[in-house]
Amino acid sequence: MLHILYIIAITAEAMTAALSAGRRNMDWVGVFIIAWVTALGGGTIRNILLGHYPMTWVSHPEYLLITAGGAILAGLIASFMRQLRKLFLFLDALGLVVFTIIGCQLAEEMHLPMVIIVMSGVITGCAGGVLRDVLCNDIPLLFRKEIYASASFVTGGIYLGVEALGGSMEWATIIAAVLGLILRLLAIRFEWQMPKFVYQEEW
Amino acid sequence: MLHILYIIAITAEAMTAALSAGRRNMDWVGVFIIAWVTALGGGTIRNILLGHYPMTWVSHPEYLLITAGGAILAGLIASFMRQLRKLFLFLDALGLVVFTIIGCQLAEEMHLPMVIIVMSGVITGCAGGVLRDVLCNDIPLLFRKEIYASASFVTGGIYLGVEALGGSMEWATIIAAVLGLILRLLAIRFEWQMPKFVYQEEW
Amino acid sequence: MLHILYIIAITAEAMTAALSAGRRNMDWVGVFIIAWVTALGGGTIRNILLGHYPMTWVSHPEYLLITAGGAILAGLIASFMRQLRKLFLFLDALGLVVFTIIGCQLAEEMHLPMVIIVMSGVITGCAGGVLRDVLCNDIPLLFRKEIYASASFVTGGIYLGVEALGGSMEWATIIAAVLGLILRLLAIRFEWQMPKFVYQEEW
Repeated sequence: MLHILYIIAITAEAMTAALSAGRRNMDWVGVFIIAWVTALGGGTIRNILLGHYPMTWVSHPEYLLITAGGAILAGLIASFMRQLRKLFLFLDALGLVVFTIIGCQLAEEMHLPMVIIVMSGVITGCAGGVLRDVLCNDIPLLFRKEIYASASFVTGGIYLGVEALGGSMEWATIIAAVLGLILRLLAIRFEWQMPKFVYQEEW
Repeated sequence: MLHILYIIAITAEAMTAALSAGRRNMDWVGVFIIAWVTALGGGTIRNILLGHYPMTWVSHPEYLLITAGGAILAGLIASFMRQLRKLFLFLDALGLVVFTIIGCQLAEEMHLPMVIIVMSGVITGCAGGVLRDVLCNDIPLLFRKEIYASASFVTGGIYLGVEALGGSMEWATIIAAVLGLILRLLAIRFEWQMPKFVYQEEW
Repeated sequence: MLHILYIIAITAEAMTAALSAGRRNMDWVGVFIIAWVTALGGGTIRNILLGHYPMTWVSHPEYLLITAGGAILAGLIASFMRQLRKLFLFLDALGLVVFTIIGCQLAEEMHLPMVIIVMSGVITGCAGGVLRDVLCNDIPLLFRKEIYASASFVTGGIYLGVEALGGSMEWATIIAAVLGLILRLLAIRFEWQMPKFVYQEEW
């Protein structure tokens, strides 16, 4: 079930990432790279940091093909995707939550401390988007956007919390996924933002 | 033979990278870092992604000295290098092809799937230039330039193709190197470009 | 002793990094990420390159909490920190030297060649700042600033030199730390710069 949601999420991430690349007039090589990095980069960075080999896309090279297919599809239906904007915002939110929980589960299986389990979830959920923005030469959106990494953080916290209260991994996954998704969707709907740290002085 | 071409290629990459750094008025520390990252970064990223340790430059620290020497040489003969522009374009094309084949061979030795063997070649060939552009705060050239990553991709494909047809690793190397080099040189000569994905709408 | 200096240094790095993030109006998620990356990123990059697992902050997750605390503290006393500018410049110099020596010691324990020991020190000392600048979408300061990476390089060289002359690891640490710190402070005081490589021609 989580696996099916994962496939849907990486495809959706690849599609919206392809549009980002198209907006910068990249050639198709660039489009594929941006799509791969955005969809698979979060898990890759997590695996590098935790020393967890092989990478998901090395043992499942079909993920590279699926996401490349998503990027091509986005090129074909680009103008149509605009009308599906809400669907893709929903799928992006779903991806954030699914990636986060998968990241938590992986760190849990490695018997890492709780702080690292949450961190692993947040990195899995968010690092792909940061990489995309760095490659597109932007300040990462993550650092400016409405509740995004925070929603990932809360999702990881709920997941651990349910387990700490004696819930099974299945229940933890379901409850964290539902609540995390609701939080993220509310944040989009009402444009909730994290407080900013504004510091003007040169020093 | 491939080893000698590799040494020539990393030296040439370091030299042209040093000019890039000089164009941004970097100090000599920056020049060395850009030279190292460009010449050795592709193989390093590949090794990190495949979990292949130690890094080439850790077991062969002389590569760090050779590329640093290349950067210094570029500083000394900068104005002369301009007249050798065609030579350096050729050496860069040679480097792309040599790095790609080395990357394919390494993934092959690790018994990875075919998609990953080609990917390993492309990453080895191209990631150094992407890292250089990110550190210089540019949108990676790779995403905009004439056939470059694609030439790397085709080289990897030919390499695997010759082997699939029963050719030895030596023949695969020679045929892929020659055809890949010709493709890249033709792409430079006639300014072949990959089709771009242009998408104007804000969404 | 080195351990205590390390804790002080990562806290100070996190605090000044938080101000950098504040100057770009990042939200608090961004502030934490920039603080973590700056304070712990150098050692992380070094560990990835040397294949040394687990990461320091995975086995000591309290470092994540300490540096997050430093970032919050910086937010609270931002205007006051300006008056402590000299103290923080000193702590930053101390951090550079301490990180460098820790990086050298780790590579030494891994029995790596001398060039790599120095390189490991320089990466530990400097890569955090490079990552911070890439995430903030700047050309890394390292490539333009007064003697910084060079001070790290000299510190590593002195450390190895004292050991080569028969000194113990303790003496090497103390002598390298004191001389490296003096060099860096003199470089700040007199604005010593590395020579720049200026190359104007387009090619």
